[in-house]
Amino acid sequence: MTQVKVGVMGVGNMGRSHASKLYNGEVKGAKLTAVCDLMKEKLKWVEENLGSDVQLFQDEDQFFKKAEVDALIIATPHYHHPKCAMKAFQQKLHVLLEKPAGVYTKNVREMNQMAEQSGLVFSMMYNQRTNPLFQKVRNLIQSGELGEIKRTNWIITDWYRSQSYYDSSEWRATWKGEGGGVLLNQSPHQLDLWQWTTGLMPKKVRGYMNYGKYHDIEVEDDVTAYVEYENGATGVFITSTGEAPGTNRYEIVGDRGKIVVENNKLMFHRLTQSEREFNATDQTGFGRPECWEIEVPIKGEATEHVGIMQNWVDAIRTGEELLAPGEEGIKGLEISNAIYLSSWLDETVELPINEDLFFEKLTERIAQSQQKKSAVNQSLDISQSF
Amino acid sequence: MTQVKVGVMGVGNMGRSHASKLYNGEVKGAKLTAVCDLMKEKLKWVEENLGSDVQLFQDEDQFFKKAEVDALIIATPHYHHPKCAMKAFQQKLHVLLEKPAGVYTKNVREMNQMAEQSGLVFSMMYNQRTNPLFQKVRNLIQSGELGEIKRTNWIITDWYRSQSYYDSSEWRATWKGEGGGVLLNQSPHQLDLWQWTTGLMPKKVRGYMNYGKYHDIEVEDDVTAYVEYENGATGVFITSTGEAPGTNRYEIVGDRGKIVVENNKLMFHRLTQSEREFNATDQTGFGRPECWEIEVPIKGEATEHVGIMQNWVDAIRTGEELLAPGEEGIKGLEISNAIYLSSWLDETVELPINEDLFFEKLTERIAQSQQKKSAVNQSLDISQSF
Repeated sequence: MTQVKVGVMGVGNMGRSHASKLYNGEVKGAKLTAVCDLMKEKLKWVEENLGSDVQLFQDEDQFFKKAEVDALIIATPHYHHPKCAMKAFQQKLHVLLEKPAGVYTKNVREMNQMAEQSGLVFSMMYNQRTNPLFQKVRNLIQSGELGEIKRTNWIITDWYRSQSYYDSSEWRATWKGEGGGVLLNQSPHQLDLWQWTTGLMPKKVRGYMNYGKYHDIEVEDDVTAYVEYENGATGVFITSTGEAPGTNRYEIVGDRGKIVVENNKLMFHRLTQSEREFNATDQTGFGRPECWEIEVPIKGEATEHVGIMQNWVDAIRTGEELLAPGEEGIKGLEISNAIYLSSWLDETVELPINEDLFFEKLTERIAQSQQKKSAVNQSLDISQSF
Repeated sequence: MTQVKVGVMGVGNMGRSHASKLYNGEVKGAKLTAVCDLMKEKLKWVEENLGSDVQLFQDEDQFFKKAEVDALIIATPHYHHPKCAMKAFQQKLHVLLEKPAGVYTKNVREMNQMAEQSGLVFSMMYNQRTNPLFQKVRNLIQSGELGEIKRTNWIITDWYRSQSYYDSSEWRATWKGEGGGVLLNQSPHQLDLWQWTTGLMPKKVRGYMNYGKYHDIEVEDDVTAYVEYENGATGVFITSTGEAPGTNRYEIVGDRGKIVVENNKLMFHRLTQSEREFNATDQTGFGRPECWEIEVPIKGEATEHVGIMQNWVDAIRTGEELLAPGEEGIKGLEISNAIYLSSWLDETVELPINEDLFFEKLTERIAQSQQKKSAVNQSLDISQSF
């Protein structure tokens, strides 16, 4: 196909941004043809700013019946993601899904199965995978340069939000409306990069969460997770929206040195030999293997959302390989679900987690959820996505 | 008294260093008068290098009967510390004790009670307390400059040791000979500084330990601990002897900013207002409080072991306040014991811990301990201290 006709479901902050980029021709081989949103004023904004050629729908079912689209970008609230993607696959639409893949792996797994059967192009909006710095980290690990991993440690606490952020929408930071807090909303990129760069999923997870510690919210705003990997490596993941200024420091220790990512710099403390080998042969007791401090040069810029959209469109048109296959969205989400479940059960959980149990415990929280202003029909509330 | 007559119990690496400094007159108002060590060759070294005036004892009881000393520096293996200090108090000797205070808090508490009743000057060799950098960190916290603490995070993994270190002595890294690994031997300074700088002891502790992960030893060489404080703050302490190059990064987040100590630099990311106040008043959602990045100048040098010895001697002579009162040695040790106990029980423990249970569990490990070469009478093995 010459031009991929793209629809956008949900034109809140993110959806509007994606639609504008498509309309402005920033994605080659793609064209914005339709938009759907529950709120009239959002559609009006599209009409006034993105041209009268774009079909506008206020009703999702009408959109799926009548929109002239080959592909769909979904930028609705979290709970809506898998449901909407599955409807799109039924309509034979290619899908680009905003993060997180969903709120619970149980229905994300269904979505993935349907995606696989469909043969359609399914991608996740993991725009941080376009960052050449994290691509380089992944390369250093996957190529064996860092050696076998011993420990990972990500302190990602620079997600500061004040109370006014949480007060801006009734669905935000509620179990019913959003399904989680800092771990589900702010941290999916890091949870994905954590597993994507290392190529490792944790085997055991122990999560410690504080709910509404720094804000008047019912979900978590402070998380510490300890993990163990199959090979014996350990890891820590710390995130919060209540610390100022926060930290974003990712450290990965391997047999051949240490990688530290902080302040947009990639430092590689590279040993000139394997530590395990040094350990076995050194006779000095206090000796240390020779180490080179290298600031690894980073070439290119992160192409961010446009880069992911372009990659997805190219995959549709020419079969290019996806940088962020949609099916991989479940990985970061499974780590996330495991941290919640561990906190709720107050015990260590093993992966794969008991998905039914997670869903049951989440459902209990949804049932007791106190939305802040008025009840809304969440499945249709696709207007305030972010 | 004009000159404090000081004895040294155990002239392994550390004891020999302390004795030499005393002999060389590096500590004003003090004089080395006697030394005790189980090993003849160590005494011979003292005789040849530190003068013939120094009384030499190979037997501890003889030392306590006959040595002409007012005060004693104890630099023997860990298990011996409280026993030896208590004997010294009975003989009315002031005591300066090498770290750790002991292996288990149960008998360290007895030692502290005896010290208090004695009225003698009792100090711990916490030489890192003489570091003006950590004094400044403590000052920034204790003066309220950092505000109420939210989180502490110490990654102290630069204790690299190769197998040859552990093979150098039969008592090393055994439950029977040493009573622990990296947490008990290498990390006591950081465990002390962690509580001393913040003025906070954890309330709950969850320890994850790996025993003999990187070395052929029976004790731990890899530790991750998660803690919670009374005020709701959380913390993480990570240490290992198996990572090269390691990290030494201490981060403390408070209501008014963040302190980061790394590479001998003290960075204070100082907010111009309280974060709690900003949180309540900001209306922008994504706003962040103004923050100044300050590299805090550090005046003076760490006086290290000589500084602690001088402070202790001055306290004996003129009543000067101690920088590291002996009774405070139990604090870092209690955190240490809690981390072990949590790992052994595989559950979170609360402080104060059950000291009898800890001792019982330690005793089980001592009973099964496999010393590497030959059995030694540990209570007399004061020769290889470090």
